[in-house]
Amino acid sequence: MSNPLNIAIAGLGTVGVGTVQVLQKHAREIAVRCGREINITAVSSRDKSKDRGVDLSGFAWFDDPVEMAKTAKADVVVELIGGSTGVALDVTMASIAAGRHVVTANKALVAEAGENIARAAEDAGVTLAYEAAVAGGIPIIKAIREGLAGNRVSRVIGILNGTCNYILSTMEETGRDFDSVLKDAQDLGFAEADPSFDIDGVDAAHKLAILASLAFGTRLGFKQVHIEGLRDITALDFVYAKELGYRIKLLGLAGQTDAGVYQRVYPCLIDQEGPLAAVDGSFNAVIAEGDFVGRSVYEGRGAGAGPTASAVVADLIDIAAGRLSLAFGVPAARLADLKAIPIKDRAGPFYIRLTVIDQPGVFADISSAFGHANISMESILQRDHDEAGNAHIVIVTHSITEGALRLALKGLEDHTAVVEAPHVIRIEDVWGE
Amino acid sequence: MSNPLNIAIAGLGTVGVGTVQVLQKHAREIAVRCGREINITAVSSRDKSKDRGVDLSGFAWFDDPVEMAKTAKADVVVELIGGSTGVALDVTMASIAAGRHVVTANKALVAEAGENIARAAEDAGVTLAYEAAVAGGIPIIKAIREGLAGNRVSRVIGILNGTCNYILSTMEETGRDFDSVLKDAQDLGFAEADPSFDIDGVDAAHKLAILASLAFGTRLGFKQVHIEGLRDITALDFVYAKELGYRIKLLGLAGQTDAGVYQRVYPCLIDQEGPLAAVDGSFNAVIAEGDFVGRSVYEGRGAGAGPTASAVVADLIDIAAGRLSLAFGVPAARLADLKAIPIKDRAGPFYIRLTVIDQPGVFADISSAFGHANISMESILQRDHDEAGNAHIVIVTHSITEGALRLALKGLEDHTAVVEAPHVIRIEDVWGE
Repeated sequence: MSNPLNIAIAGLGTVGVGTVQVLQKHAREIAVRCGREINITAVSSRDKSKDRGVDLSGFAWFDDPVEMAKTAKADVVVELIGGSTGVALDVTMASIAAGRHVVTANKALVAEAGENIARAAEDAGVTLAYEAAVAGGIPIIKAIREGLAGNRVSRVIGILNGTCNYILSTMEETGRDFDSVLKDAQDLGFAEADPSFDIDGVDAAHKLAILASLAFGTRLGFKQVHIEGLRDITALDFVYAKELGYRIKLLGLAGQTDAGVYQRVYPCLIDQEGPLAAVDGSFNAVIAEGDFVGRSVYEGRGAGAGPTASAVVADLIDIAAGRLSLAFGVPAARLADLKAIPIKDRAGPFYIRLTVIDQPGVFADISSAFGHANISMESILQRDHDEAGNAHIVIVTHSITEGALRLALKGLEDHTAVVEAPHVIRIEDVWGE
Repeated sequence: MSNPLNIAIAGLGTVGVGTVQVLQKHAREIAVRCGREINITAVSSRDKSKDRGVDLSGFAWFDDPVEMAKTAKADVVVELIGGSTGVALDVTMASIAAGRHVVTANKALVAEAGENIARAAEDAGVTLAYEAAVAGGIPIIKAIREGLAGNRVSRVIGILNGTCNYILSTMEETGRDFDSVLKDAQDLGFAEADPSFDIDGVDAAHKLAILASLAFGTRLGFKQVHIEGLRDITALDFVYAKELGYRIKLLGLAGQTDAGVYQRVYPCLIDQEGPLAAVDGSFNAVIAEGDFVGRSVYEGRGAGAGPTASAVVADLIDIAAGRLSLAFGVPAARLADLKAIPIKDRAGPFYIRLTVIDQPGVFADISSAFGHANISMESILQRDHDEAGNAHIVIVTHSITEGALRLALKGLEDHTAVVEAPHVIRIEDVWGE
């Protein structure tokens, strides 16, 4: 058996502790799979005295993770600190400069600084591995980078944020409103005290940007992701969505066409009988479409100590076994420029909910505004007087551009009977084109 | 850029031709991904003169694939001949003896001779890769061998045969009987002229045995797979299954418990709202459960030129990029002995359909036979006089052993009112324990 692979772990939160547990529990099997042992030699975290439920006494302790990255007896540094700048980036770059591979679970870091890190790693002859950064319970980075490597991938669609998915599933089940479900999710530990990264779609956008780069061989374009979060989704929308045969999911959608690459994160309506619709709670799922393989679907837990640590250890085993990969499947310098397709070029159906004063002629005015914008409607519901005596009109359009939609809504902007800003949700056919 | 990876392809059926097409269409991208080109140098098939729609003029032609395996200018031989013995095995062993890696799509070969081949490959310092052998459109070999390598995998469940899945989907949709749907499937090219390998469950069992070995680190146990095929499933069973909330799928189920490893292939009833239920037509799907990762689900096309060639090329890209793996994740000599759990030890619910003469006391006799065998029933349907005036009684039991079931059925064997052998289908909770 060869020399052991020595690793140092920076960050001992739940994922760091989980990684220690996986490596300890399965040490023997992992050694057989790698042909060598994986040894933890050093760890670093904020508070040495904290009881984390694992025995750390055999490892060198560093208060300063950058110092550890520079000096520890380690072939690999596992970065589990988080954040796209600051210490996480410093640890990563110091590790690479010292000739050590980096394994990270940090999507913000990879999405925002991944190209620079990959370039530095290539120059130093080490690897940057980040399976744990996207959907820990699904080996989706490996699947796209290696499993689909013979394909031109045209589309990647995913439920990429477990917190959002949990909130949406719960809103639908309970009929409760966003704020109340979010508060419960925070109390239960399913959402952060500051939940904005998740519920505003930033976390999903980080993951989508990474998947898009891998899938399309294009430069990382996190800043080009069109992002909309959950805050405007109401309990009422679930009622109408269900009546129309849809569920509401926060999706990341990326595609490569002749016009370029689009990357979009937003809540949308999807067919309640179709793929992804049954992916509930904290689960993630990804659909990838390649020109030879066709459609493939991957589903698993999105986060949590076990799944994320499992992904970290998979990267470590690959390194130990000598299966090294380029971070984005091709040399960083060979990533193609990303020509971003703007959101205004999206064409697709929409769900539009209008709250109107129930008076004669309103319906005709709305129809007329949509007619002027050249929008044909697939279905219209008129429902319920709310407490204020207002009616809801819910329209499902045929496929139209965002520009046409805006034109129609502008035509209703000053209408005195329309008493609330329209609620607009895109409808996506995840199985179609 | 390094030297090209030279490959020779044995077998130019649809998958062989598909492999040539993938390598030609994406030659540039693949070279960037591998850091070197993948060059086809030689091919072998039966009929040189046949027009296959691809230009083979640049490749050396061999009438004898074994000769090619021995002498072609190739780092890798791609075996696409098929069969677990004979030429396919000869080509494989000759390639390894000549120091060449082997990539194959041949599940029969891997399931029945994989251990010997892997051992020879290890001795020769080459790799045996077979992503295309199981569910071509899903990188499931890589997912289990590498993506879940940090886990103890406890269970693998899959829809592993597209022909069976197509037949079952079509029977359910159309209400037609097995023989008629099979004939159509043959006419459409979805089933072979001799369909027994598929419909009797042998093909699924080959794949299950491979997945079980990979997942559990145990020796290949194809001969220990309990196999039942589709031939006894009738149109009527779909009617009752639907009424009870189930769909009928041919599943492969393998699990590792303290008692050993079970491997089972049979048609069974699964919750129509649950996972795998929506996997229709020619699609395959696999659920894998690991102790840290939890449940992960993979879905994609099971066969066909494109998906299978995509998998072959993924293996070639891994080899070209230097990402070599042990065939079964561990050295062949380290695979643990497989202690097979016999089918009689399965416990679970059953669906039992009895055709009886509609006369007083029959129902009581049946209840009594089940009571004597200590079987409690979850639900009973009594339906329809058929043309002969007989009634159907459909029983869903609680979880019982196969032994208890046999005892109950034995109690009814000589009953004059039971006019047909009972139709028994197992019920599986794919999401449960």
